[in-house]
Amino acid sequence: MEKPKTVNNSWNSLVAWVLAGKVRAMARMITRVEDREPGWKDAMKAIYSASGSAKVIGITGPPGAGKSSLTCEIAQELVRLGQKVGIIAVDPTSPFTGGSLLGDRLRMKKIFTTKEVFIRSMATRGMLGGLSHAARDVARIMDASGKDIILIETVGVGQDEIEVVKAADLVMMVCIPGQGDGIQALKAGVMEIADIFIINKADLPGADEVMADIGSMLALSSETGHPIPPVLKTSALKSHGIRDLVATLLTYQTEKNIQDFKRENQAKEEILSLMENEVFRSIHNRLEQSGELSNAVRQMIDKKKDPYSIVTELLQQLDGKAYLFKA
Amino acid sequence: MEKPKTVNNSWNSLVAWVLAGKVRAMARMITRVEDREPGWKDAMKAIYSASGSAKVIGITGPPGAGKSSLTCEIAQELVRLGQKVGIIAVDPTSPFTGGSLLGDRLRMKKIFTTKEVFIRSMATRGMLGGLSHAARDVARIMDASGKDIILIETVGVGQDEIEVVKAADLVMMVCIPGQGDGIQALKAGVMEIADIFIINKADLPGADEVMADIGSMLALSSETGHPIPPVLKTSALKSHGIRDLVATLLTYQTEKNIQDFKRENQAKEEILSLMENEVFRSIHNRLEQSGELSNAVRQMIDKKKDPYSIVTELLQQLDGKAYLFKA
Repeated sequence: MEKPKTVNNSWNSLVAWVLAGKVRAMARMITRVEDREPGWKDAMKAIYSASGSAKVIGITGPPGAGKSSLTCEIAQELVRLGQKVGIIAVDPTSPFTGGSLLGDRLRMKKIFTTKEVFIRSMATRGMLGGLSHAARDVARIMDASGKDIILIETVGVGQDEIEVVKAADLVMMVCIPGQGDGIQALKAGVMEIADIFIINKADLPGADEVMADIGSMLALSSETGHPIPPVLKTSALKSHGIRDLVATLLTYQTEKNIQDFKRENQAKEEILSLMENEVFRSIHNRLEQSGELSNAVRQMIDKKKDPYSIVTELLQQLDGKAYLFKA
Repeated sequence: MEKPKTVNNSWNSLVAWVLAGKVRAMARMITRVEDREPGWKDAMKAIYSASGSAKVIGITGPPGAGKSSLTCEIAQELVRLGQKVGIIAVDPTSPFTGGSLLGDRLRMKKIFTTKEVFIRSMATRGMLGGLSHAARDVARIMDASGKDIILIETVGVGQDEIEVVKAADLVMMVCIPGQGDGIQALKAGVMEIADIFIINKADLPGADEVMADIGSMLALSSETGHPIPPVLKTSALKSHGIRDLVATLLTYQTEKNIQDFKRENQAKEEILSLMENEVFRSIHNRLEQSGELSNAVRQMIDKKKDPYSIVTELLQQLDGKAYLFKA
């Protein structure tokens, strides 16, 4: 690709650099899209057609399952196989901070120096437009910038965090020995989202038990006609089982009807959430600027009105206002 | 209170029974409000003025900290002191299920038979209008029905779960020994929401260390002028420290300016989220019914259009439509 003629902060040149696979441009575009800088949507449109070829893998599981270490190992093996890798670490342990932890970055340090791997961590809070949406945008930018595989690591607790992995093509559920209760807890609905099960820390006592637990749980659900997901053992710290796992990840094919169903839901979810954000941002702005919101808050605190009546009145005032959706 | 003349499924009589403190009516109203049955908003309006006197206590902390056991112990002690207690258990361990776990209910069994305690568990997913909103409605119904104290138990991971405790008057953070990393993880922002710290399982080794960790973290933040929250030790399984804890909960007074700030944010959050739900439900219904949504999904999957352009077009079509907000 030719070097763009004007290198400035404009979206056009930034997009060109992203499409040319430049790392700093990718980082910068992610930040600007996350911040919803004016023009972000046109920029996302511009890279859209270049996206769609990367495989997005969601890595989830309970806190302490070793997801970060495993993500590092997987990334290293992928690089060895010649793949370009993007990692999105959705920080699960600091839901309060609005920022990401140094700890995660340190654990990731091992692969920080590999230029084939691009790592981006995201706070779980304060993402404009919601967490799953932000993660999807980041993955799309990495994808358009030439990454072959994108790993999204997130904890398997919390609705928003689960929404994140639902946007992946393939979901790995990481379990560890001694988590009988944990498996029980996941039992009822995890089948819907997990394509591959990993027993990490498989050198610890109890690995066979947890494998049996998962096996019997999967056998039960296979009666409904779904294919039985593979269950693999790894030890991220000892680098055991990583090659098999990566080979499985690369060759895994989701059944066509399941894949179609997933894609449809993903598209629907994306359209609706983009829309919801646009509409709501514009309503919120208007209520803030007009002082209607602070009035309403005052009335509610002073117990002059209940929140339900307040909302009915505010909606009546908004009703049919043409300027409402000028984002 | 007089017995209402007509006892049927209408909201009017149900509301009357709720206000009279009838347990079955309370359970029924919660279900109907959760299901957003037509008329739910008027019913919530009708009980609103009877609510506001209960103290809502959020109990949060990492998985495995013993929050459920602690909640049981606190409830028992409160009952001994003559308080009527409501418990809202937001099930943290089964984010996938859309339902709650038998396990939690079993742990709660100890106090199930006490008629002064009303327990309601909520799934973390699929709540119409969002989790924090649903929890707030349930708390308000319990409050209007005469409960003095409402305990909301939820895991301290995940944005939605944190929103839940932010709606409480008072937040207890439950920690356990051997969680040095956990404390570090919470460090940066937990001060904003935790009013009281509990070290549960305080008979285990490491209790003093975690107490020291919390102490030094709190000392750091006290420099910003906030009062230092109390730190208490308990052992829920051995019923140690429960009386002191409950005494602290009952007498704890949040500083006035912090309390005002909290109330204002809670009111604002409630108004905005109620509004967002109303608006979005009506947009969503329209897009589903008109077939616009399924068309858009098709175009996106076939890569004929990007989601950003699709949303812009859909918004243009919706713009200024007066019927938009007829909920």
